[in-house]
Amino acid sequence: MFNFVPMITKDDISAAYQQIQDSICKGLEIADGGAVFEEELWSRDGGGGGRTRILQNGDVIERGGVNFSAVHGKLPEKIKEAFQVKEDDFFATGVSIVIHPRNPWVPIIHMNIRYFELNEETRWFGGGIDLTPHYILQQDAAFFHNYLKTVCDSFDISYYPRFKAWADDYFFIKHRQETRGIGGIFYDRLRPENTQHSFDEIFEFSKAVGQSFVPIYAELIKRNKDNVFTEEQKNWQYIRRSRYVEFNLVYDSGTKFGLETNGRIESILMSLPPQANWAYNYQPIHGSAEERTLQLLKKGVDWLNG
Amino acid sequence: MFNFVPMITKDDISAAYQQIQDSICKGLEIADGGAVFEEELWSRDGGGGGRTRILQNGDVIERGGVNFSAVHGKLPEKIKEAFQVKEDDFFATGVSIVIHPRNPWVPIIHMNIRYFELNEETRWFGGGIDLTPHYILQQDAAFFHNYLKTVCDSFDISYYPRFKAWADDYFFIKHRQETRGIGGIFYDRLRPENTQHSFDEIFEFSKAVGQSFVPIYAELIKRNKDNVFTEEQKNWQYIRRSRYVEFNLVYDSGTKFGLETNGRIESILMSLPPQANWAYNYQPIHGSAEERTLQLLKKGVDWLNG
Repeated sequence: MFNFVPMITKDDISAAYQQIQDSICKGLEIADGGAVFEEELWSRDGGGGGRTRILQNGDVIERGGVNFSAVHGKLPEKIKEAFQVKEDDFFATGVSIVIHPRNPWVPIIHMNIRYFELNEETRWFGGGIDLTPHYILQQDAAFFHNYLKTVCDSFDISYYPRFKAWADDYFFIKHRQETRGIGGIFYDRLRPENTQHSFDEIFEFSKAVGQSFVPIYAELIKRNKDNVFTEEQKNWQYIRRSRYVEFNLVYDSGTKFGLETNGRIESILMSLPPQANWAYNYQPIHGSAEERTLQLLKKGVDWLNG
Repeated sequence: MFNFVPMITKDDISAAYQQIQDSICKGLEIADGGAVFEEELWSRDGGGGGRTRILQNGDVIERGGVNFSAVHGKLPEKIKEAFQVKEDDFFATGVSIVIHPRNPWVPIIHMNIRYFELNEETRWFGGGIDLTPHYILQQDAAFFHNYLKTVCDSFDISYYPRFKAWADDYFFIKHRQETRGIGGIFYDRLRPENTQHSFDEIFEFSKAVGQSFVPIYAELIKRNKDNVFTEEQKNWQYIRRSRYVEFNLVYDSGTKFGLETNGRIESILMSLPPQANWAYNYQPIHGSAEERTLQLLKKGVDWLNG
């Protein structure tokens, strides 16, 4: 028996992810119309590094981060247990995005594509896109989910239903018994063994998810950026953002992985909003748009036919 | 051999804690001078309940909570493992306080006294007080730590150094490599076996910690509530509060215990501030008061001789 050299290398993947970061930043600058990303290059003590790009005080984007990283080193014991693996040496590369818009009618968006490798046998892709509207607009939710379904269907018609349900389960704020937003798609540990697809095909899917980001978010910005909003609606946005903080600090495994592998803190926590408010025992007014949004923050909603 | 009936019962302890909650609320209303606590009584599905008291929009206190709870039920598997115990049925009672003041010159304060019981052999007291100044004032830090030392010394001269070091270790934001504030005292699982004191004496100590809260915080309010502050100083306060959020959601075991035992969410998360801001890669100005405070957020500082 002899080992096949894998067709796709770590370098291919991180190079493709860097290109995706570049094109997303360009697309977001155009969609924002008013600001440019600032870049910080960083290296990690344990090995590797990244390019953190932050856009602040834009016309549309209050703060957004588009991170690329490619890190390697020894896996902490805790993560080894969580991943149920024995190997120590890991390589991980990915692009992570969180955008907090200024206007509460524009949704918060998150995207991540990532690749993780312990050795030639133990390697996988993960990622997803999910949307957190401060106010859920059915037509936007339908556009978002249909776009993702189209991307998924072009690879495998089982992907959308499988990854949509996975997102519902993953982006769930257990202690509030509410979803973070309207979900989207989430997948992890995708490999030939659990997809019936080659590694090349999964890599192509990962890139397609990354490339779908700009067309999706540019459209959602265009639809909503000029909507007028009141101070009360801005306050509601701050409250929804505090739920976003709760999810990211209590449940998000990307954040946990970053904190536990001594990642660059400012890059990991760029997902947190510029401002978040906690109101004690907030109860929306009966029949209000805030109440309707809260009522829709549930698993298992079919968003395709808005 | 026969079992001694313990002198102190669960009911004695929860009754004493309720009295402490009452007197703290009264003391805080006087110190604030402008607002009164609102109370919510709640019961927990698994057993027990509590009295949550919240003061909002006071003259001094932007938001503060003084919680009493006495809950019982079955311990979740995760907690059993963390506690390294085999028993299922637990009883827990305590008073928890977090105060977020309006004026950045007044520190955030936290206090907790608690009692946990699985059975007559497995039961203990825990708790502590710690201070999180937005700006560290040496004379206030000295007052605070000397007050705690006096309380501790009246029970056992080993308590203050032991519990001060414990607070330094516990109130530590690992991913930032900074302490949450200037610490104070923290202790857990205090029982006759590890203190050379009777259960009665430890209970007395627990009450003394609770009773020290008002004299300490009323003094810190008096000293600082009328200090003028700028918008920049208020912004710094929001940034320090975001670190408080990070600690509470990522590390605080009281919060974790509450979330995992399906505690009342609004009571558990009343520790979070009304508003917190995250500034990407915030760097204080060289030589500024903000920088001096950051430089002091370290373990092992001797605050007694300010």
